Amino acid sequence: MAVTLKEVAARAGVSRSAVSRTFTPGASVSAKMRRKVEIAAQELGYQPNALASSLTTGRTKLIGLVSNNFHNPVFLEIFDRFTRGLQDKGLRPLLVNLSDETEPENSVRMLRQYSVDGVVVASSTLPPGFARAFGAAGVPVVHAFGRVSGASGVAVVGIDNVECGRMAARTLAARGYGRVGFLGGPETATSTQDRFAGFRAGLAGFPEIAVSHSFAGDYTFEAGRREMLRLVEAGPAEAYFCGDDVLSIGAMSALADRGLAVPGDVGIIGLNDMEIAGWDNIRLTTIRQPIGEIVAGAIEAMVTMLAAPEAVPASRVFACEVVERATLRPLTVAGAPGR
Amino acid sequence: MAVTLKEVAARAGVSRSAVSRTFTPGASVSAKMRRKVEIAAQELGYQPNALASSLTTGRTKLIGLVSNNFHNPVFLEIFDRFTRGLQDKGLRPLLVNLSDETEPENSVRMLRQYSVDGVVVASSTLPPGFARAFGAAGVPVVHAFGRVSGASGVAVVGIDNVECGRMAARTLAARGYGRVGFLGGPETATSTQDRFAGFRAGLAGFPEIAVSHSFAGDYTFEAGRREMLRLVEAGPAEAYFCGDDVLSIGAMSALADRGLAVPGDVGIIGLNDMEIAGWDNIRLTTIRQPIGEIVAGAIEAMVTMLAAPEAVPASRVFACEVVERATLRPLTVAGAPGR
Repeated sequence: MAVTLKEVAARAGVSRSAVSRTFTPGASVSAKMRRKVEIAAQELGYQPNALASSLTTGRTKLIGLVSNNFHNPVFLEIFDRFTRGLQDKGLRPLLVNLSDETEPENSVRMLRQYSVDGVVVASSTLPPGFARAFGAAGVPVVHAFGRVSGASGVAVVGIDNVECGRMAARTLAARGYGRVGFLGGPETATSTQDRFAGFRAGLAGFPEIAVSHSFAGDYTFEAGRREMLRLVEAGPAEAYFCGDDVLSIGAMSALADRGLAVPGDVGIIGLNDMEIAGWDNIRLTTIRQPIGEIVAGAIEAMVTMLAAPEAVPASRVFACEVVERATLRPLTVAGAPGR
Repeated sequence: MAVTLKEVAARAGVSRSAVSRTFTPGASVSAKMRRKVEIAAQELGYQPNALASSLTTGRTKLIGLVSNNFHNPVFLEIFDRFTRGLQDKGLRPLLVNLSDETEPENSVRMLRQYSVDGVVVASSTLPPGFARAFGAAGVPVVHAFGRVSGASGVAVVGIDNVECGRMAARTLAARGYGRVGFLGGPETATSTQDRFAGFRAGLAGFPEIAVSHSFAGDYTFEAGRREMLRLVEAGPAEAYFCGDDVLSIGAMSALADRGLAVPGDVGIIGLNDMEIAGWDNIRLTTIRQPIGEIVAGAIEAMVTMLAAPEAVPASRVFACEVVERATLRPLTVAGAPGR
């Protein structure tokens, strides 16, 4: 594509290495040599090639942006924020789709081949082994929306899913529901496990409330719909904490299909507050995860690790909050105030 | 990251170029040299680096995947298909977010710096100047969802938006609507212009049908909602052909807000058939654009151009079809059969 470093070197009558050093911040090159190269570069219309210079600097500025769910609309917002945020830092997202991947090896090989400077895993469902394998391959790894654990060399930026489960429990208890259910995401996902653990713990203080639970296979509309159809068949609870917003919307579709009103017959609370949750066709009451702050925090952690790869920044946990819309019955005067 | 080509060269006691040639398909290297390199590579656990070898082959296998709308959920499906499809071909998508970009120069510079082998523009709204500028920069360019035009060296893969407009016109006429409207996307987008031209042309044969039109600023929920609120205020038509699905869903939200039933009071037909259009909360009647085939066709065109950059494949246009769901009144017996 256009002018190469080799052509500039030939024109300037210098080595390729001299051209490369000229365009590498901090590299050593004499003023005279630099001048020669700059003149040749200008004459030829040369623009330094980030990949070529990466051989000198050891930096490609490519960041693997790894995800495994392209059927949950929240990821469009996440990709939007990551791509803009990385571009703003002069970094470039190599989008890696691991929807069908079960073993980390292929992905590690792919990212290794492309000499990414770092990897951002944007997923709450990718097995922790992936992030660990990326880390073991010697690149900075940031896990956005992951479970905080001191174990690995991976910087985690996300939320406290256990606390979110407690928040959902308090919210349903305060509205006087007597039979509540957890309709979770994939059982193997840490987000599912933590939200469920918090939900159960939060309801432990309300022995009068009956708690049931089940899991959808994926964080998708179809999985939420399918699971709720099954629950309605078996006799539904009065309200559900659904694993996330897209599951909630799938569940609401199943309820509508079976002639059950939301929140009249069944209440729903989700998690994420993706854009669609606020659409007036949906108006989902949900627990807001601050996606913008998490993405900004993940990029910040990546930039820090790129500057000092051996220092893993402390994990960061952002607070969530309930966004009241139209899918839960109003607060009862007699309801428990939550704890 | 891990072992470098330089280390392999040192271990094998050969030049870096020899190592590079060993791992470049078709490059010239003696059997003896190759053997030395392979032994050293194996001992060190070296895996050829795609970017390093790109300096020899002139190929990076990076494909710029350019989009400018991260608020229209259809793009998540498009990204899913592009990332998988490119990965299957051993290519890697560098996701480029041009949401805020109005001038092609920055984007061209960015893609040039990263020495992408090709650019896929996935957008119906990015000004044609962008695709032309990428083409002028000397890389193969495929414009998916673009307007077919023989003018440039860009391969276009998409649909006939004029024919889609006609299809919408026939569909509304056949259902006996007497006052219909076009609620289009951004007026500057070729997709908007073509859909509107076809819609008007298709209704020209029905002089008894009154036709109005207006445009939303973006292909987003909010823009569709805002425009429909305005139309309801002014007195709405009996049915609308909305520029796409997300505009349709925004428009439906506005109608619900104003107490108007769909399709009882106002009919809606969209375009795309994105996953959400089929959600049972939405059940949008729409014109299906075969996204999977368009993406596969765009990748095929890219692979062809990578093999022979000077030969621009012929543009490909895929047929669309109406998907009947629940947002138009039923076909009237007395209705025109369409033409």
